[in-house]
Amino acid sequence: MGRALATTVAAAGHPTTVWNRTPGRAGDLDTARTSETRSVRDAVRASTLVVVCLLDAASVREVLDPVTDALDGRTLVNVTTTTPEQSRALGTWADAHGAAYLDGGIMAVPPMIGGDGSLVLYSGDPAAYERWRSVLERWGESPYLGDDAGLAALYDLAMLAGMYAMFAGFFHGAAMVATAGISARAFAESAVPFVSAMVPAFLEYAAVIDGGDYGVPGQQSLEFSVLSDMVQASVDAGVAPDVVAAVQGLIRAQIDAGHGKDGFARAYESIARPTTGAAR
Amino acid sequence: MGRALATTVAAAGHPTTVWNRTPGRAGDLDTARTSETRSVRDAVRASTLVVVCLLDAASVREVLDPVTDALDGRTLVNVTTTTPEQSRALGTWADAHGAAYLDGGIMAVPPMIGGDGSLVLYSGDPAAYERWRSVLERWGESPYLGDDAGLAALYDLAMLAGMYAMFAGFFHGAAMVATAGISARAFAESAVPFVSAMVPAFLEYAAVIDGGDYGVPGQQSLEFSVLSDMVQASVDAGVAPDVVAAVQGLIRAQIDAGHGKDGFARAYESIARPTTGAAR
Repeated sequence: MGRALATTVAAAGHPTTVWNRTPGRAGDLDTARTSETRSVRDAVRASTLVVVCLLDAASVREVLDPVTDALDGRTLVNVTTTTPEQSRALGTWADAHGAAYLDGGIMAVPPMIGGDGSLVLYSGDPAAYERWRSVLERWGESPYLGDDAGLAALYDLAMLAGMYAMFAGFFHGAAMVATAGISARAFAESAVPFVSAMVPAFLEYAAVIDGGDYGVPGQQSLEFSVLSDMVQASVDAGVAPDVVAAVQGLIRAQIDAGHGKDGFARAYESIARPTTGAAR
Repeated sequence: MGRALATTVAAAGHPTTVWNRTPGRAGDLDTARTSETRSVRDAVRASTLVVVCLLDAASVREVLDPVTDALDGRTLVNVTTTTPEQSRALGTWADAHGAAYLDGGIMAVPPMIGGDGSLVLYSGDPAAYERWRSVLERWGESPYLGDDAGLAALYDLAMLAGMYAMFAGFFHGAAMVATAGISARAFAESAVPFVSAMVPAFLEYAAVIDGGDYGVPGQQSLEFSVLSDMVQASVDAGVAPDVVAAVQGLIRAQIDAGHGKDGFARAYESIARPTTGAAR
């Protein structure tokens, strides 16, 4: 990912200094506009804009703690995957060392960087965002979510939750049909158009959730959505029901609380208000 | 759904007799080609093709058991939602009463029936499928999956597993961003294009699953996909982690079994081979 980010800004004409824990990883970068350094301090000092793409929050501190004196007056854009709390802590830490902090959540895989569909979410210092926006936009669409440094990570993880749950659902379905000798590929060829057609329903569910009235007519009821057949068929087929059972649990909690006639979107309440679900 | 099915075939010129547990529900059906009867026996006797769309497998038996003598020589197409085992049992029961049995899995909501994107899966008696195919195709694309009567229900539930898991993931993400005051609608507007762009990855995962080599280069590793940040951020925000924790469980089982460097698609194995996961 670091290579994709450096390559894209260098190709756009921005002189770029790169550093990697493993020297020489810069390899095939465009040497006309990029230079590699073996010192973190030199890398930080080379530019007013410092972009950090590492393994996790701990590795950011591990790499930058020895050079905090060099951070003063610079902008630190951290695109390392972190939790919202870790991003907020890094923002406070950067502020203590005189650096403006922007947290970035990259919603793309490396080959997508700089191309259509690439999205990087930002939160943190608003002035730093405005100052560097034209550079950041080289990587993709670059919305600014707010000055709470944790927002980009929160939003990033929220989007990934949808993605991972969907992939797990696909794996579950593929495992079910495999018990009848159907290949994952044959299943994927049906599931891609079917699931694609269902994605826009997010907007309808969102309207119900924001409206707060789960009794709006025309919805599929929780009782109809209870997934008993799906869990039973999984167990019958010898397939681990964990993922669909977790979804069923969200639905059941609302039915048990007396909301079975309400729409499926009420399952949201089991996630958003887990401790008060039964009382609502 | 029954109304949508009857309306569509009647509109295509097929004389249709309808029966509902609650008399008079036929209401606004096209009376030129549909007639309503108050007797199940009369409804069964009216046509060689008998289509059943009820609440569940038990209700199919409850409605038809008193008239089994009238089933001989007819084709029974059951589009009621059932488990694969229930479909197989209904197939055996229909056979005992001289009826050809086709099981249908409707992958559409009623307004979609007869239009683009409508899909109904069939399994069971191959001769009955060929004989009635031109009528069945009035409702939508009508693939035949095989003579095991349970296949349509299995495939149906497998596709729905992907859909429900995805919706639960969307609810999870919406609940996460709600803790920062972001509306479900705003989240849906980002999540729809993002998740849509990820759906075709099913085909890539399918290739890895069918190939059986989870070490194929270029994949995101299980270790990178472990979802710890997502679960932690959910807990930090007071959001129930159930759905993402279930996905994390699938990943962790493979990492614990020593496969952490393999691609994310190996999470499939935790579902498909739950008892032998650690041994693989």
